[in-house]
Amino acid sequence: MKKILILGAGLSASSLIKYLLDHSEIHDWKIRLGDVSLAIAQKKINGHANGVAFVFDVNNQEQVSEEVSQADIVVSMLPARFHYLVANACVEHGVHMVTASYVSKEIKALNEKAQEKGLILLNEIGVDPGIDHMSAMQVMDKIREKGGKILEFESSTGGLVAPKYDNNPWNYKFTWNPRNVVLAGQGNSQFLHNGKYKYIPYNKLFERYERIDILDLGEFEIYPNRDSLSYRKVYGLEDVKTMFRGTIRRPGFCKAWNVFVQLGMTSDDYVFNNSENATYRDFMNSYLAYDEEKSVEQKVSEYLKIPEDSDIMYKLRWLGIFKSEKIGMIDATPAQILQQLLEKKWGLEAEDKDMIVMHHQFVYELNGKAKKILSSMAVYGEDQVHTAMSITVGIPAAIATKMILTGEIKNISGVLVPTIKEIYNPVMKELENYKVKFIEEEIDWQ
Amino acid sequence: MKKILILGAGLSASSLIKYLLDHSEIHDWKIRLGDVSLAIAQKKINGHANGVAFVFDVNNQEQVSEEVSQADIVVSMLPARFHYLVANACVEHGVHMVTASYVSKEIKALNEKAQEKGLILLNEIGVDPGIDHMSAMQVMDKIREKGGKILEFESSTGGLVAPKYDNNPWNYKFTWNPRNVVLAGQGNSQFLHNGKYKYIPYNKLFERYERIDILDLGEFEIYPNRDSLSYRKVYGLEDVKTMFRGTIRRPGFCKAWNVFVQLGMTSDDYVFNNSENATYRDFMNSYLAYDEEKSVEQKVSEYLKIPEDSDIMYKLRWLGIFKSEKIGMIDATPAQILQQLLEKKWGLEAEDKDMIVMHHQFVYELNGKAKKILSSMAVYGEDQVHTAMSITVGIPAAIATKMILTGEIKNISGVLVPTIKEIYNPVMKELENYKVKFIEEEIDWQ
Repeated sequence: MKKILILGAGLSASSLIKYLLDHSEIHDWKIRLGDVSLAIAQKKINGHANGVAFVFDVNNQEQVSEEVSQADIVVSMLPARFHYLVANACVEHGVHMVTASYVSKEIKALNEKAQEKGLILLNEIGVDPGIDHMSAMQVMDKIREKGGKILEFESSTGGLVAPKYDNNPWNYKFTWNPRNVVLAGQGNSQFLHNGKYKYIPYNKLFERYERIDILDLGEFEIYPNRDSLSYRKVYGLEDVKTMFRGTIRRPGFCKAWNVFVQLGMTSDDYVFNNSENATYRDFMNSYLAYDEEKSVEQKVSEYLKIPEDSDIMYKLRWLGIFKSEKIGMIDATPAQILQQLLEKKWGLEAEDKDMIVMHHQFVYELNGKAKKILSSMAVYGEDQVHTAMSITVGIPAAIATKMILTGEIKNISGVLVPTIKEIYNPVMKELENYKVKFIEEEIDWQ
Repeated sequence: MKKILILGAGLSASSLIKYLLDHSEIHDWKIRLGDVSLAIAQKKINGHANGVAFVFDVNNQEQVSEEVSQADIVVSMLPARFHYLVANACVEHGVHMVTASYVSKEIKALNEKAQEKGLILLNEIGVDPGIDHMSAMQVMDKIREKGGKILEFESSTGGLVAPKYDNNPWNYKFTWNPRNVVLAGQGNSQFLHNGKYKYIPYNKLFERYERIDILDLGEFEIYPNRDSLSYRKVYGLEDVKTMFRGTIRRPGFCKAWNVFVQLGMTSDDYVFNNSENATYRDFMNSYLAYDEEKSVEQKVSEYLKIPEDSDIMYKLRWLGIFKSEKIGMIDATPAQILQQLLEKKWGLEAEDKDMIVMHHQFVYELNGKAKKILSSMAVYGEDQVHTAMSITVGIPAAIATKMILTGEIKNISGVLVPTIKEIYNPVMKELENYKVKFIEEEIDWQ
């Protein structure tokens, strides 16, 4: 009998929990699921004989240590900043660990200790990061096996509302953590284009998008992620000429979102004065110069050179950002105020389903000829529990957890990401059962 | 005999050191001047019988403690981030302290302990902060004494090259720390305009300047400082409708500087790839989208919508930012690269003199009538040692040091700024001997 400890029972953990419970009988697993909310954990266990829900507090070091010490493997679905607390305990007690988050510096530092104990600390095995790595590696393996040299690599992902439910002027709804959406892109973005390093500051990010068609889903736009360069090494693409990672939205999103960026309304660095009694209209007006005569709408329009009858202004009005409605939040930052407004308008309705779209482009050279491969995926949510986000984040992590417990992943240890054939091939194969499947197209490329 | 410890012998300390040495005979002072460079400290002491130069390392806790313990007062002219190390020792050993820098949180926290020991920790007694506080308080006292109510307060300062030597297209040269100029304004600015809170993000800061005439010096432009609001309380202006603090430049500066801000070239957050072998042209090009045909100049012009024959483009070309000249710096951030280029072009020539311009505007109401007072100052450097910056930063601090030692400042203790009548009236009076003098004009207001 093997014991699995799952920490965090939030939205993105649903499909993972279900997978592990569903496979617990045949593999003789016992699962303990900890969350700050016992109710949520119990709901996800749903009375399953092999599962136990309990109240878990990651800041209670004693509890972390005790729970981890009794497990054979830990899957942390906690917010990313807490993973290292769990990872420390895993290394101490000799327990494997799986997360769907980026490898942090703190976790990277555990590599040697983990290797000494023969432990696997597998990270970035969700969707982005996760499925992006694994699906890209599979295509690159095929190219390399036939002797091709990869010249360009671009990869983008978006969490969106499924087309059938895509019924607001922004063509966007929150399908994951709204706070991350509001703060997305802050800092500097960097990538490589035709051998040239390119840097984009936050204030230009949402002006530097590209339009693209994906599958039969129509048009999208892609804006750059923060860091595209560090993946060169991970993917063995040190000599690549173009290396780009991006985020997918529907057309028109970036231009409208850019209004908030330009005005400074996405800042999380200071408290907005009197956020309790101020209105959304006051909030907007605070980013515009004083004028005795002009309306807030007129001022935005003139300041950012956006015609009042444009789609952008329509999107803004639709959000209610010009309304004299009280914000009613105490000591809120601009980003928090904006998030509250967006949640009212961008929340999923009861019947809504989400969609994850992923799109890779590879240009490679073989026998003096350039070819381009487009590889695309669209996954749809089943319902509001098993969303596309929950499936694509959780099922890869769940499959990897199974493979570690059954010994399918062996002879490797340390802090890992799934760019290892032994991991990504079986995981991608099994993901097809969950409708996670890429469609490839190859074309000649001058 | 009283012992003065001066820490830091850099440019802005020259006039302070000279003042204290000049007054040492009559007051029976001994002065110890510590700096990382013995040569620089010796040069400033210049063989004066009452002065001793020594090598000082602020990170050597033992040395800090020993030197401070032997002094009656410490004047810290070190970089602002080191003041608290000195302040801690001052409080421990019961020694007064003077700085020309903003009160930090760490120093603020020493208030109670300083009061218990009857110590004065006087900060913000330079030019900005310093002369700005003191000169504004004097005008406000006059207004309040006659029963006026202050409605609006705006205050701006600029360190510039004196008109006679103002001979480059930017009408700007470095007259103080170049790094601070390159990084100026990062973060968010906030002020109050006619009762409305206004916030400006960095990316809009250099587009939100105002034009203004000062004295007979012609036109200037003013862009907002980061935080104008916190001074309401310090100045007793809790009910004021407009509260604004700004930085003064010559016309055309902000629009051209905004190019670097918009492109992202002032970032200090990451290392620019291959900064050793890349050229300034590569540096510029990295912030522009890839294009096989267009020149870097053309791309900047189109991206930021600046005509190629505009003054802005002329200023950029004049700097040499489009030149294929190697940067030659190892692992430099964009801000560091930009600074190196600017230092070549904006450095003061041997004969150049600098200028400090300060300008306040007060609107007040008295007997149902609104009046406006303009109060302006221009101070010129004497030479490259006793610059306007060195005089206006150092002489106020030196006068205050004298007043503490002679007991002219008494019955007050704790962490102070010079908004206390007992300090600012005599300091401002004596500053007139150094040509630091405000010219006032009062006009009827609407």
